[in-house]
Amino acid sequence: MDRVYNFNAGPAAIPVEVLQKAQGELLNFNHTGMSVMELSHRSQAYDEVHNNAKSLLKELLNIPDSYDVLFLQGGASLQFAMIPMNFLNNENIAYYILSGAWSEKALSEAKKFGETNVLASSKESNYTHIPKQFEANSLQNAAYLHITSNNTIFGTQWHEFPSTNAPLIADMSSDILSRELNIEQFDLIYAGAQKNLGPSGVTVVIIKKDLIEKANKNVPTILSYQTHASKNSLYNTPPTFAIYMLSLVLEWVKEQGGVAEIERRNKQKAQILYNAIDESDGFYKGHAEKESRSFMNVTFTLPSDELTKAFVQEAKENRLIGLSGHRSVGGCRASIYNAVTIEACEKLAQFMKEFRKKH
Amino acid sequence: MDRVYNFNAGPAAIPVEVLQKAQGELLNFNHTGMSVMELSHRSQAYDEVHNNAKSLLKELLNIPDSYDVLFLQGGASLQFAMIPMNFLNNENIAYYILSGAWSEKALSEAKKFGETNVLASSKESNYTHIPKQFEANSLQNAAYLHITSNNTIFGTQWHEFPSTNAPLIADMSSDILSRELNIEQFDLIYAGAQKNLGPSGVTVVIIKKDLIEKANKNVPTILSYQTHASKNSLYNTPPTFAIYMLSLVLEWVKEQGGVAEIERRNKQKAQILYNAIDESDGFYKGHAEKESRSFMNVTFTLPSDELTKAFVQEAKENRLIGLSGHRSVGGCRASIYNAVTIEACEKLAQFMKEFRKKH
Repeated sequence: MDRVYNFNAGPAAIPVEVLQKAQGELLNFNHTGMSVMELSHRSQAYDEVHNNAKSLLKELLNIPDSYDVLFLQGGASLQFAMIPMNFLNNENIAYYILSGAWSEKALSEAKKFGETNVLASSKESNYTHIPKQFEANSLQNAAYLHITSNNTIFGTQWHEFPSTNAPLIADMSSDILSRELNIEQFDLIYAGAQKNLGPSGVTVVIIKKDLIEKANKNVPTILSYQTHASKNSLYNTPPTFAIYMLSLVLEWVKEQGGVAEIERRNKQKAQILYNAIDESDGFYKGHAEKESRSFMNVTFTLPSDELTKAFVQEAKENRLIGLSGHRSVGGCRASIYNAVTIEACEKLAQFMKEFRKKH
Repeated sequence: MDRVYNFNAGPAAIPVEVLQKAQGELLNFNHTGMSVMELSHRSQAYDEVHNNAKSLLKELLNIPDSYDVLFLQGGASLQFAMIPMNFLNNENIAYYILSGAWSEKALSEAKKFGETNVLASSKESNYTHIPKQFEANSLQNAAYLHITSNNTIFGTQWHEFPSTNAPLIADMSSDILSRELNIEQFDLIYAGAQKNLGPSGVTVVIIKKDLIEKANKNVPTILSYQTHASKNSLYNTPPTFAIYMLSLVLEWVKEQGGVAEIERRNKQKAQILYNAIDESDGFYKGHAEKESRSFMNVTFTLPSDELTKAFVQEAKENRLIGLSGHRSVGGCRASIYNAVTIEACEKLAQFMKEFRKKH
């Protein structure tokens, strides 16, 4: 098949079985005589796709009926603006915990709409860990408390979510569906699809109905959560093909045994790579502190820039793709989202061992 | 192949050759060993797709270098908000010409941001024609003049664009790339892709660089044209697969002979259906006045609701799909975008003739 081992940070690997299914029915979806891309978003055939994606996500993540599931566009970047537009006003404060570059971007949009407060930050250590020293149970006039559950660039992840009196909002773009969650800890979860859920172009929002009620009223129609919740995400033409791909990925997760099994595999995959780092006698150094290590993005540096370049290049020749680190951390990054196989991680660990011996 | 004749209003027909190409390389794009959906948006392989789509559009529509071409998300509905957010302020006025329901929606978003003025409207006649009685050459303090070039619901289309002293903004969602244009008549053109350009999920914006310079400064980052223009539409993760499909559709248009040839076919297709209406002794009645008739959406009514229902049902049995009219007009609508073949229109005209004889 000539497929590579894909460690891209996002857009990222998609399960090969999902791609094969999409390929097989690309010209004639479910006996409609049309591609799924050619279906009207008001047709019954599309409606089934749309509602199937929604109900599978509810089932896989145990989302209670007190929450709405929305399919939006614009990625996490649009959520950075929509959240304060909908929930920040002249009388409240938006609290942010900074654990990486994406948290910073989210904060910077909120500043355009009202008062913000940085409750905690690990910026001074170049985000090597998730902030721990903060008190979030008596936030005053809180519109919400915003966190980023996994930090793709730095390779850190929240392993226990903060307890807070404020509505808790989490950007889960890079780890949604990678582990079991207690949805009721959150009031709003959002995620661009392009890491664990499918192709880029659709954003999943899981939002407590109570929170929607509290939203500001004079928001542009298309930027109001109320609009999309009241129209089942069909107020305007949704990104139908991306939602279809999402539905196939969700079916795949279910077939694999659900989120519990996916989580087990993800921990195993991460362990394989973190072992390769920890057993390298300091040749590979993890960027993240151990207790903040991400199960999705494994970040590490090599002894020199030359070795880093050689590593990425030789890995590529071995069909291991997407291993360059982000420029703000340097070094390497292996993104091991749900669709990355255990086999791929074993190949990479083996390559890491061989590369170290050689250099 | 069992493909149907697809007259959907959008998402709509996509050329079968384009779907076949996408299908063939869905698991391994251009020897990358990955689906185009799995490519990093920062990779060279994706960059070529992105820039190919951009340069093909520039070539096909003769877009001068004084314009930027952007690939955004959120459809026309997000443009309705972005336009006033970027260009309306306390000192100017946004002018709108209303030619249908989408113009009304665009106006209603602008009202949230500043002063608006309805320069002309054909609402009182249920939008059976494009407004003609207005003077647009001496608009005072104009932020812009907004028009909708084609009205999908009512089946009307501007055949000559207004001359104006204001920056001219056109929603061309349902007729972009269907006919030759003098881009320099416009300052901003926008279009959701799901009619003539590809699947839903990507919005094309063609914007004069001068206009970008004039934009308001305190706009949320993701909603600022400046952001996307300065980053070649790669500020955030773009909808990569939708842009790839757009690039294939543009290549297809070029192979067909370019926009001039597409326009010739579109006029021929429309003529086939309008003849079927006009030669029906009043059995089929066009909704649009003759001189405002759209070459993209042919709207017509039948003598009764029962006959309309029977028409849509029997058409479906003949593999002619998507012919129900919008509820605000009633009757039927055949959307004959670029990917709808002359053969499909002939089949439909033939069916119309037979249906009339039978009833």
